Amino acid sequence: MAKAPYSHSSRRWVEEVRATSRKRKPDEVTVEEPMEIRLLPFQAREAFSVAVTMRTPGHDYELAAGFLWTEGILDHPQQIHRIHYCRNPREPQHFNIVQVALREGVDLNWKRFTRHFYQSSSCGVCGKASLEAIRVQGVSPVTRAFQVPPATIRTLGDSLRQKQSAFDRTGGLHAAAWFDLEGRLIAVREDVGRHNAVDKLLGHFFLANGEPLNDGILMVSGRTSFEIMQKAAVAGVGLVAAVSAPSSLACDLAQEFGITLIGFARGNRFNIYTGEERIAEED
Amino acid sequence: MAKAPYSHSSRRWVEEVRATSRKRKPDEVTVEEPMEIRLLPFQAREAFSVAVTMRTPGHDYELAAGFLWTEGILDHPQQIHRIHYCRNPREPQHFNIVQVALREGVDLNWKRFTRHFYQSSSCGVCGKASLEAIRVQGVSPVTRAFQVPPATIRTLGDSLRQKQSAFDRTGGLHAAAWFDLEGRLIAVREDVGRHNAVDKLLGHFFLANGEPLNDGILMVSGRTSFEIMQKAAVAGVGLVAAVSAPSSLACDLAQEFGITLIGFARGNRFNIYTGEERIAEED
Repeated sequence: MAKAPYSHSSRRWVEEVRATSRKRKPDEVTVEEPMEIRLLPFQAREAFSVAVTMRTPGHDYELAAGFLWTEGILDHPQQIHRIHYCRNPREPQHFNIVQVALREGVDLNWKRFTRHFYQSSSCGVCGKASLEAIRVQGVSPVTRAFQVPPATIRTLGDSLRQKQSAFDRTGGLHAAAWFDLEGRLIAVREDVGRHNAVDKLLGHFFLANGEPLNDGILMVSGRTSFEIMQKAAVAGVGLVAAVSAPSSLACDLAQEFGITLIGFARGNRFNIYTGEERIAEED
Repeated sequence: MAKAPYSHSSRRWVEEVRATSRKRKPDEVTVEEPMEIRLLPFQAREAFSVAVTMRTPGHDYELAAGFLWTEGILDHPQQIHRIHYCRNPREPQHFNIVQVALREGVDLNWKRFTRHFYQSSSCGVCGKASLEAIRVQGVSPVTRAFQVPPATIRTLGDSLRQKQSAFDRTGGLHAAAWFDLEGRLIAVREDVGRHNAVDKLLGHFFLANGEPLNDGILMVSGRTSFEIMQKAAVAGVGLVAAVSAPSSLACDLAQEFGITLIGFARGNRFNIYTGEERIAEED
């Protein structure tokens, strides 16, 4: 795979104003650049655009794969022939167009593409219809039973923060991390967009084998919204933990799809919003 | 205008796990519900869908107006005949569909709709093309000269936080506030989505008169990304301050469109990324 000459951060001059000083100095900001995801059907001559997302460059192939998976467009890595940056000589190469070429016989069901759902929903535009859109994709509730001790949950925030502070000099990146059920950090991805960080992380596992991610914990550095939980549900994640608050629809989605949802995981404290049976009693 | 029976927060049962206790109690989470924005051209029988956004109910008409303005679809409130919740009896009324009826002779220029831009861009998908897309909308740089003392900037964060903590019992809301150049809080809007909070705030002023917002300060509770700065540029905002970090493209956009961009505005400190001439020297 071609490596893009990317950087996570970009140097800028900044005027740092403090209580008693004002000085000009170089600083680092998080890079944000558009990335277009294109699909190339088998033997088609032209790829078509699926989405443009503002992202931090890096792990772009995982981002494309994760997006296509968690938005319900693809459901197995075998559907992908290959992923590469667009090489059309008529288009300038900024490493910002990722093309996903499909294998023969891959049938794209556009109705499953969540964003197109409301047009055909009979119950109108509402939270219930949003959850129904995920069910229509063929996503079923996570039934896998496991238990994690509270002590494990209490370590997640620190593990993520340690990893992140080493990486993010800008304070501008969101993180998504995968932990095993013993609380060991397996993988982490960061991005200027919360949803992109999750897509990169889930896309990493999708490309590896496409198996549901039942046996582990998805930890996110910010809040949990519908969009984040939708991605978790499609990936089969049984436990989502977040440093900040969940929304009402994130809770409803977690309840409906059998996901344990934890919020405000900071230091010794956390709140369980749904699926408390997966969190063991204290020793 | 019809009032929607909305609530910002929703009660849920939560298990609160602390260092030495675990108890079940009611808690409040931020409401997140989809809202569809539809445009009804003059004398047309059917409205068409422009976007579905996940938002916190409340100030929905401002959200619709602000979105249509800052995405380059409308540029003056006189183009709007009226705004109302969809009253189609064949569709269930969840107060989640907002219909914007246009006056006679309003010509929608869909090419200006930023999200459609990359297809026709000659320089490809990149930050430069993203900035160009805004210029194509007819947005020009803010040339208005004014100066704000650092002491005023230092008060913004506290003013916003005080207002927000009174309002947000859930910890799940983003805020956008408008201050005059003396640092007086004029209006604040909150939402589960950062961009929605900004659209509600800017939409409020758009519906009032549609004048460029040169003479004041837009303060946001989180980070500044391309999307937030695009909205500010369309609205003619000269000074944007944020509690957290800007992205590279937010800085580039601010530079290009003559906007003073401040980040990490916390307590006595802040950083000026662009347009430092609008921040006066210390007394």
